[in-house]
Amino acid sequence: MIENPYYTHEHHGDYDLVNIGTLDLEEGGSIPDCQLAIATFGELNAAKDNAILVTTWYSGTHQIFRDAYIGSEHALNPERYFIVVINQIGNGLSTSPHSCSGDLAMSNFPAVRIGDDVVAQERLLREHFGIEALELVTGGSMGAQQTYEWAVRFPDKVKRAAAIAGTARNTPHDFIFTETLNEAIWSDPGWKEGEYTTNTQVSDGLKRHARIWSVMGFSTEFWKTEHWRSLGFESADDFQTGFMEPYFGAMDPNDLLTLAWKWQRADVSRHTGGDLAAALGRISATTFVMPINEDMFFPVRDCAAEQALIPNGELRVIESVSGHLGLFCLEPGYIEQVDRHLGELLATDA
Amino acid sequence: MIENPYYTHEHHGDYDLVNIGTLDLEEGGSIPDCQLAIATFGELNAAKDNAILVTTWYSGTHQIFRDAYIGSEHALNPERYFIVVINQIGNGLSTSPHSCSGDLAMSNFPAVRIGDDVVAQERLLREHFGIEALELVTGGSMGAQQTYEWAVRFPDKVKRAAAIAGTARNTPHDFIFTETLNEAIWSDPGWKEGEYTTNTQVSDGLKRHARIWSVMGFSTEFWKTEHWRSLGFESADDFQTGFMEPYFGAMDPNDLLTLAWKWQRADVSRHTGGDLAAALGRISATTFVMPINEDMFFPVRDCAAEQALIPNGELRVIESVSGHLGLFCLEPGYIEQVDRHLGELLATDA
Repeated sequence: MIENPYYTHEHHGDYDLVNIGTLDLEEGGSIPDCQLAIATFGELNAAKDNAILVTTWYSGTHQIFRDAYIGSEHALNPERYFIVVINQIGNGLSTSPHSCSGDLAMSNFPAVRIGDDVVAQERLLREHFGIEALELVTGGSMGAQQTYEWAVRFPDKVKRAAAIAGTARNTPHDFIFTETLNEAIWSDPGWKEGEYTTNTQVSDGLKRHARIWSVMGFSTEFWKTEHWRSLGFESADDFQTGFMEPYFGAMDPNDLLTLAWKWQRADVSRHTGGDLAAALGRISATTFVMPINEDMFFPVRDCAAEQALIPNGELRVIESVSGHLGLFCLEPGYIEQVDRHLGELLATDA
Repeated sequence: MIENPYYTHEHHGDYDLVNIGTLDLEEGGSIPDCQLAIATFGELNAAKDNAILVTTWYSGTHQIFRDAYIGSEHALNPERYFIVVINQIGNGLSTSPHSCSGDLAMSNFPAVRIGDDVVAQERLLREHFGIEALELVTGGSMGAQQTYEWAVRFPDKVKRAAAIAGTARNTPHDFIFTETLNEAIWSDPGWKEGEYTTNTQVSDGLKRHARIWSVMGFSTEFWKTEHWRSLGFESADDFQTGFMEPYFGAMDPNDLLTLAWKWQRADVSRHTGGDLAAALGRISATTFVMPINEDMFFPVRDCAAEQALIPNGELRVIESVSGHLGLFCLEPGYIEQVDRHLGELLATDA
């Protein structure tokens, strides 16, 4: 167990830890006393039929949703909906390698799949809140992977789904991209096969990791137009050292590796013997597939190919010069588009 | 000086080393007895007006041109033209860090710019062959950078130019992408600040370097369609370990770093105080701008923006699922397109 000030209430504000008991894992083994960190917004109504689930991405927590996506001025409106953001396992706030002791600590943390998270989330919503159905499940990137897993695994519980900047089955290119992120960490002598004693021992690896994100996470046009200026930075290098490096540098390497392993292997067709069309064909939710037009690793065509396999799926492309990391709401027009699409989705009968 | 079997006649076949004397460098310092490795095809006619210059890319040599681009069945036809492929400085065959002794050896090798190469090439062609004008200058990637430098620096000597998969001014995104390649090398403890004694000491770094190339060098669709199968590999991992890793693993880290430094800073607007339009406006050559449609780091739009600034420039997009490394002629349709465009360019009056 490592003390890391990033994964605290001081940094992340209010959230609750909910113990869902023992979570048996798809890859074998289990997590006893599995804790999910959740942040809720709004009130669950008496019928318990106004709930929205928001899932989190690689490196992400509930924080960005609280700060940028959720509010009375947004489609994710807590005056109307009960919105639950569930931090995924391994993200540092929910049960994660860095915060475990004993058998699950650090390099001993088990392999967790997207399906494990979704099973855990379903249990939490049902047992903790009595929620049996969701008005909407949405998330970006790995959050989209969880969204698809929900829609395929629990079709009767998901009325609407919005998968932002992610796919239902991870692509081969995404796998090798993510592997370069892992290698940036593994290659740091301070990583010590996952048995470092503070994340700062792996700061060189985390820095390289951040710089690979800079190449793939934004778009060529983001850099060409010096979009980082609008974020308050003076130079591209300032943006790297002042934003990207501290962002990832604060995180725990084993936590990131746990997320990466999960990301790389996301695949709803595990439910159907590898048949993606059959898996996506199970979805009954009204589903908006929302890729970002400048995304370099979840490109529109990969998302559109999946959308075509979803019975009630619709393609809603978000335009953002920021590329994949447009998810961070790096330009005003981004959230306006998300709000418009989610608003229209929530307005559909389901 | 390091013995490296990759940079030999055994591996690279016939080429000649031409000593062009002392080359003074833009960044200061000089290379005494600068040697350029050249491979020639065809015969220079009596008027010395049938010469074509081919320039090389990062990690590349004359080899790929000899094997795939030049021949009586290609636009680069040695039965008609005298074709000179000049290996760029630092590529391992021409004067390079690994092959120097004394003051220029290894980490002491000076910074070389694209302009230095072009000055050296012009001198070689003039003094060694008596060539004063070129029917065509062409090259891909860093070869495109050299092509543009030729057309801007020596407009009276370049009748036609074909810049494949590269830009006249390197982009900010390209800079940071290339930096991740460098960091893969720098971060290997075996690199020892450039003072390793054999490149195999840096094999871990070269392997990571190869894997980042795999992410950016091809296209998402290359991986999704398993295009590597057509190249004789059984799995994506086979392709990585059987092609990408041995390809880069054979090379010299300091040589690659010298090329990367040069690539990152390519900029024809150095001739015009940073005014790219003014620089490209100098070009009198009939110029074909030939980006690859799936290129992830020299995207069509960046190339098209430069083409629009060239007085006699024309955009000719090459379609290749292989992305940037389509340059390696990884599918039959690629060279057919190159031949068609270069053939039409060579047929123009100039």
